[in-house]
Amino acid sequence: MVVLVFNCGSSSLKYELFETDPEQSLAAGIADRVVVRAGRDASLYHEPADGEPLVLECPMPDHEVAVGYVLEALTDSEHGVIRDLTEIAAVGHRVVHGGERFAESVLIDDDVIAAIEQFARLAPLHNPPNLQGIRASRSRLPSLPMVAVFDTAFHQTMPQYAYIYGLPYELYEQHGIRRYGFHGTSHRYVSQVAAEMLAQRGIRPQDQHIVTCHLGNGCSMAAVLGGKCIDTTMGFTPLEGLVMGTRCGDLDPAVVPYLCEKLGISVREVDALMNERSGLLGLSGVSSDMRDLRQAAQSGDERAKLAIEVFCYRVRKYIGAYAAALGGVDAVVFTAGIGENDAYVRRRCVEGLETLGLCLDGSRNEDKALRGQAADVSAADSPGRILVIPTDEELLIARDTAAIVGGTSLD
Amino acid sequence: MVVLVFNCGSSSLKYELFETDPEQSLAAGIADRVVVRAGRDASLYHEPADGEPLVLECPMPDHEVAVGYVLEALTDSEHGVIRDLTEIAAVGHRVVHGGERFAESVLIDDDVIAAIEQFARLAPLHNPPNLQGIRASRSRLPSLPMVAVFDTAFHQTMPQYAYIYGLPYELYEQHGIRRYGFHGTSHRYVSQVAAEMLAQRGIRPQDQHIVTCHLGNGCSMAAVLGGKCIDTTMGFTPLEGLVMGTRCGDLDPAVVPYLCEKLGISVREVDALMNERSGLLGLSGVSSDMRDLRQAAQSGDERAKLAIEVFCYRVRKYIGAYAAALGGVDAVVFTAGIGENDAYVRRRCVEGLETLGLCLDGSRNEDKALRGQAADVSAADSPGRILVIPTDEELLIARDTAAIVGGTSLD
Repeated sequence: MVVLVFNCGSSSLKYELFETDPEQSLAAGIADRVVVRAGRDASLYHEPADGEPLVLECPMPDHEVAVGYVLEALTDSEHGVIRDLTEIAAVGHRVVHGGERFAESVLIDDDVIAAIEQFARLAPLHNPPNLQGIRASRSRLPSLPMVAVFDTAFHQTMPQYAYIYGLPYELYEQHGIRRYGFHGTSHRYVSQVAAEMLAQRGIRPQDQHIVTCHLGNGCSMAAVLGGKCIDTTMGFTPLEGLVMGTRCGDLDPAVVPYLCEKLGISVREVDALMNERSGLLGLSGVSSDMRDLRQAAQSGDERAKLAIEVFCYRVRKYIGAYAAALGGVDAVVFTAGIGENDAYVRRRCVEGLETLGLCLDGSRNEDKALRGQAADVSAADSPGRILVIPTDEELLIARDTAAIVGGTSLD
Repeated sequence: MVVLVFNCGSSSLKYELFETDPEQSLAAGIADRVVVRAGRDASLYHEPADGEPLVLECPMPDHEVAVGYVLEALTDSEHGVIRDLTEIAAVGHRVVHGGERFAESVLIDDDVIAAIEQFARLAPLHNPPNLQGIRASRSRLPSLPMVAVFDTAFHQTMPQYAYIYGLPYELYEQHGIRRYGFHGTSHRYVSQVAAEMLAQRGIRPQDQHIVTCHLGNGCSMAAVLGGKCIDTTMGFTPLEGLVMGTRCGDLDPAVVPYLCEKLGISVREVDALMNERSGLLGLSGVSSDMRDLRQAAQSGDERAKLAIEVFCYRVRKYIGAYAAALGGVDAVVFTAGIGENDAYVRRRCVEGLETLGLCLDGSRNEDKALRGQAADVSAADSPGRILVIPTDEELLIARDTAAIVGGTSLD
């Protein structure tokens, strides 16, 4: 089945076209600076799996126009990968927030759209552009079935004692304030790959204790027991948990009122400070990008070193916390930009965790030949595995879409 | 040496008189409703180690008057324990916040008083009454040496990557925003007792990995490596970390701006909500007292059960996090009201931690005959020990005071 996957941000539209049986990516690309009127035109970057990329610069006043360009690129005589749009059987959409209603992917109808709209109050920066993408695709491809795949869905199996905050219970009942977690599609994808690797070592899927670390620009971890998420580091919003590129992660919540008072700024400004000027950027003063920090640290920059230390220490602590929550760890999985590519960070994240049964194979961890594939970088005799698994959220969205549209069960 | 220990709150004055060689408590008591003018008179409750308690009701318009009554009670012909005040050799004061300046207890002089005053901006509810107590005692006992013992001091050995938040570094440099930790005197006291117990099992002090859990009305944990604190759950304020009687503990900091906006309340009101109406009280809607919750849970109250689950789960996760930070756990220590007396909570806090080497002896854990003394409640073959150790912050204050005044080294 040919499935088109969309991931829509407020001014960008990422897409990938898959054949799902057998699985292969046919083309992928991004429409950027959509809607943005000032300055340069929008751009479309389209890359077929075989063949030359296509780059277009032209105005894209809204998501519908952008979808139009994507569909033209996919069917372009030179750079296209399908002859006409009737070859596409379904569309899968990434949606950030599914609230407590969506514990798995779902066929999109008006009721689902209304629900996504409702959850926009919980994800005001993400659900509205996700919806714009859905509406634009429905308008351009009105006859196709579409599926929503939620970032929060995988975490809906958390027990209440893990997702509830220590606040008055009414705030949960009346305002939905609880831990939701994000990056669920990535955690689900890599934990499934890890589950297969553990099964090959004789650990039955229902007995597996897996900790997944999605370390990219946004960072989060999840504790996965027998395939189900039981805890995750991101919370009510994607701010909580690990230190990220520009987000502070865990913080004494009393710091927020203190900053308002001390700096004489509004609570909104503190919110922006915690989300946009903190994390690796705020600690180092150098960059939000771990690659820049690694370079700066090698040149002796003390604050870059500190930022990296803080980043790794927090991952290490959560591995321990989740080992306790799970009752042991069969595997720790590293994924996403930093997790897949930064051997030093991986090493520091598992340093001293031998007593949790996690022993690294230092040279395998550094082996660049393993990049881009799922690899076991733990020592041969390590009781628990340390795995590096490239994530592929788009592929999982395509799989879910094909399964739902094809009428088979998910996973 | 006879040492008088003071712990002054805004409207109360707790005290205990010790002989430090050999150590024994001579008398203890509390002056309550000091300064409070409306309603009833203040009260003094004074209890000699041998003999009948004394109860007084009379106005105490300030801390100096209250100190006067305490000194009268200590020398009272019937209820007193010393003949006259010249028997007292020194006074020790609990001070909550010592900032980054005080990593250990210190002889009080004008410079120290100025520093305590300066740190009042970090502990506006605590340092000012602590200072009032110091000033009142100096006025009543002008010739005596006095020592300040800080709640934050024990945590000053934390490495920077553990105490710094993921915020812009300037907020640390310019405004002192970092993790300080509290309950340090209690963590230090019980970790020292635990260290002796581990030494008897052949583990050298410098190799010991100890996690201390101070579970009272306020709750915090510390990771102690070779006698030095390397991490703790309370942060910039005593709000962070575990769920407490009325405090929420860890929380996505983005919830603060959301609540301001959603409930239309000020950031100060959110601060009060998080500190005074959250925690066990907010979750259960029943009480901030774990004993009440245990009863309610036994009667089938679902929210009381949930509050207890959340409380224990968070302790469990931090034990795991600190096992990772320490590189193993030789002992977990439970102390304070809940930690010393609630066997059920202890059991739930270590449930599933066998893979961390922590195995409970269920019946020893329940053994009421062990109450009030340091006890090992782990299974005989448990690799790590689970200890219950009654805390005694006042005794440690007396010890520090005697050591500093006597010119011997601390600890």
